[in-house]
Parts: sequence; C-alpha cells; structure tokens
Amino acid sequence: MPQQLKYTRILLAVDCLIFGFESQTLKVLLIKRKLQPYQNEWSLMGGFLVGEESADEAALRILKELAGLSGVSMEQVKTFSKADRDPTERTVSIVYSSLIDIKKFEEQINHEYEAQWFKLNEIPKLIFDHTQMIAAGRDYLKKKAALQPILFGLLGEKFTIPQIQQLYEEVFESSFDKRNFSRKLLGSELLKKLDEKDKSNSKKGAFYYQLDKQINHYNFNILLNLAYNQQ
Amino acid sequence: MPQQLKYTRILLAVDCLIFGFESQTLKVLLIKRKLQPYQNEWSLMGGFLVGEESADEAALRILKELAGLSGVSMEQVKTFSKADRDPTERTVSIVYSSLIDIKKFEEQINHEYEAQWFKLNEIPKLIFDHTQMIAAGRDYLKKKAALQPILFGLLGEKFTIPQIQQLYEEVFESSFDKRNFSRKLLGSELLKKLDEKDKSNSKKGAFYYQLDKQINHYNFNILLNLAYNQQ
Repeated sequence: MPQQLKYTRILLAVDCLIFGFESQTLKVLLIKRKLQPYQNEWSLMGGFLVGEESADEAALRILKELAGLSGVSMEQVKTFSKADRDPTERTVSIVYSSLIDIKKFEEQINHEYEAQWFKLNEIPKLIFDHTQMIAAGRDYLKKKAALQPILFGLLGEKFTIPQIQQLYEEVFESSFDKRNFSRKLLGSELLKKLDEKDKSNSKKGAFYYQLDKQINHYNFNILLNLAYNQQ
Repeated sequence: MPQQLKYTRILLAVDCLIFGFESQTLKVLLIKRKLQPYQNEWSLMGGFLVGEESADEAALRILKELAGLSGVSMEQVKTFSKADRDPTERTVSIVYSSLIDIKKFEEQINHEYEAQWFKLNEIPKLIFDHTQMIAAGRDYLKKKAALQPILFGLLGEKFTIPQIQQLYEEVFESSFDKRNFSRKLLGSELLKKLDEKDKSNSKKGAFYYQLDKQINHYNFNILLNLAYNQQ
C-alpha cells in the first residue's frame, strides 16, 4: 500500500486579490459569492482548481470568469492552509494578486457577480479568511513597490509630484514629508519634467512629469529611499 | 449535491529549504529520500500534512523529523502546483525556508536521513521540482535581505568588513567594489568598530566590528544600498 493513502485529500482553491488605483485612492475589487455557505456575502474572486490546471492557470481563469478581467499579470502572494478556514471541507487556498490602473480595465469588468471596487478603509465583512488575505496582499505590495518600479505605471502618461506622493502614501500607509519626498524623487533622475502644469489644485499649479524611459536601468535604492527614508 | 464533489482532491505537502552560512559560503541542507519513487536520491526535507495541522505546523514537524532541526523560524516562500510535479499522485507543495548559522545548529542536526550541507554551486541532482524550489528560495532570500537585516546575525559576535562583503556577494550572486561597499557600510552607522584586528588574512589585518544595538531603528535603504547600488 503506498504510504500516501493515509494522508487526507484536500480541495485546492485560488483567490484573486486585485488592487486598483483611481482618483488618488488604493482600492480592492470584491464580488458577491453565489455559492453556499455565505451566499451573497462579499469575497475575493475565488474558486477551485479544475482538471490538470496549475494554480497560476486557475487564477487567470477564475479572475476572467468571476470579474471579466483578463490580461492582468498576477503573482502568488501566500497560501492559506489552516484546517478550519473553510467550514464546508478542508480547502487550501493560494492567493494571487495584482495592482492595476482601474480606468484602463473599467470596461472589461463584468458585473455578473456584482464586482465592485472598495476603498481599503471601507471594506465590508468578508467570508472565511479573506480579510487576512488582503492584509497579506498589502504587505506583499509594499515589498514589491520598494524593490520594483510598479507604482509609476498606475499614474498614466504624465503626473505631478503630489500625485506620486499620494500613491506612495496610500501603498505604504504613511505620510511623507513633502519637501523630502520631492527632493528624493527629483534627485532620482527617474523623471522628465514637462512644460505643462496641472492647475486643478492650486493657482500656482504643479508641473507634470513623465517617466524617463531609462527606468529599467535605475538604481533599486531609489524606490526604497522614497518609501522608507523620510527622516 | 455540494458543488465541491466534482473537484479533484489532492495531497498537500511541505518542503523545507534550509540555507546555511559557514566558512564564508552559502549552503543548502539536503537529505536522502527514504520513500519510493526516487528512493535514496537527494531532496529537500519534505512530507505530507497530517490530520488538522496547518502547513506552518507541518513544516516545523517535518524539519524536526527529517533533519533533527528545531527552533528555526521558517517562512513560506512559494507553492508549487503543476499537475505533473509528483509522478505518484497529484501533490501540491508549499515551500518554507530559513537561513541559519550552520555552526549554531551543528549538533542538533541528526543524520538518520543522511542530512548534508551542499554549496550552492555543487548541488546534486534533486527529485521532482526541488531544484526550482531552491531557485525560488534564493530569490526570496535576496528580497528579504534587501529589506531586513537578516545577514548580520549569521556572522557571530564580531566580524570584519571583508567578511560581510563575502556574505553579501554570496547571497546576491554578485561581486561588489571593495571601496564602495566599505564606504557605504561604514556610512550606514550600523556598526561599532572594535579595537581588535583579525590578522588571519593579512599582516595589516582588518578591524573587527560589532552590530550596533540600534539596528531596529536603522533606515531600510541602507541594506538595499549595499546590495544594489554599487556603481
């Protein structure tokens, strides 16, 4: 008898955690669950693995099925394995996450499962351990944003320094000193100043900037400096 | 009929990836597998979840059972879920990892499963996807070491600048310019210079340093500077 027979077989699920950025606010995409238990409660986009698919493949399929989203590149965040996390049957869930520009994907999202964006401080009660999943995803996002230039891509073609600062403050859950942030960011040589100004917030206005095409060659420490070195 | 019935039940395993540092070299701990298939081949310390334990709990149990190691704090790295990764039966494995000071744990390790440390460039052929697991673990280690002061603890009470540089070069798989590394490290104010010198490598000798107790209050960017900003 193969030794494996004595071990419990479990269900394997994935849950998709989509962070979005819009109107200077970080949000998360939730849907209403159509299954029992907890029918009609808010949850991440989750489902079970089918056939021979890997978790990576399942995550893409489930995101498409439940929210209509495709072309989103997702990364594995963490696997949740506590025995009692799903009351129906022992289920282990692998959380995948992505951070997207909400406007870009606005038309793609379908509302069959009532997909809706929530601000991070206005998240409703979620099923199972999905609140912990969001916390793990936020932690993952901070680490990723500290090491890779993932945030600039959310701001469109051009943006002002205060807009970048707002996004950094949202992601890192901190407020940064304006002068230091601006000095460090401009010192990074990541950005190209444009002639145009955004005058929507003040008479004086704020210059627009563009990301320099050289971003792949930048020094990693610049991003960390922005996030963690605000003294 | 509950909808879950149509989904495949799978086996859930954990694999423990222990990195160690000794004699200025990064190593990985491997054991010989006692089960079929691939009996007697080299592998990470792996096994199936039992009863109601979580993957975190299973990882600690399995590391103790197969290598005798306890008191090691492990973190989840990544979950491997490809359908064909284990030829016996569909098995998903969660990889856990830790980085330890080999000398400190020398006496704890048991050799029931022929546990042995291997240099990273001398790793034998491994079962399943364990070679990919080590690659994922190395990547995780780099990110962690860039954001947290996990490397200094491996060097004992006192160490020289060249010793730290050697460890950084091992972890980041790069060689760093000596003068820049030393300048950045000393500029970080992480270290306290001792009066004593290590004369084992040169007549002139290299001063020993100690970690300043203030390390919890340091600026995160210092570590990233060491690793990524060597121009």
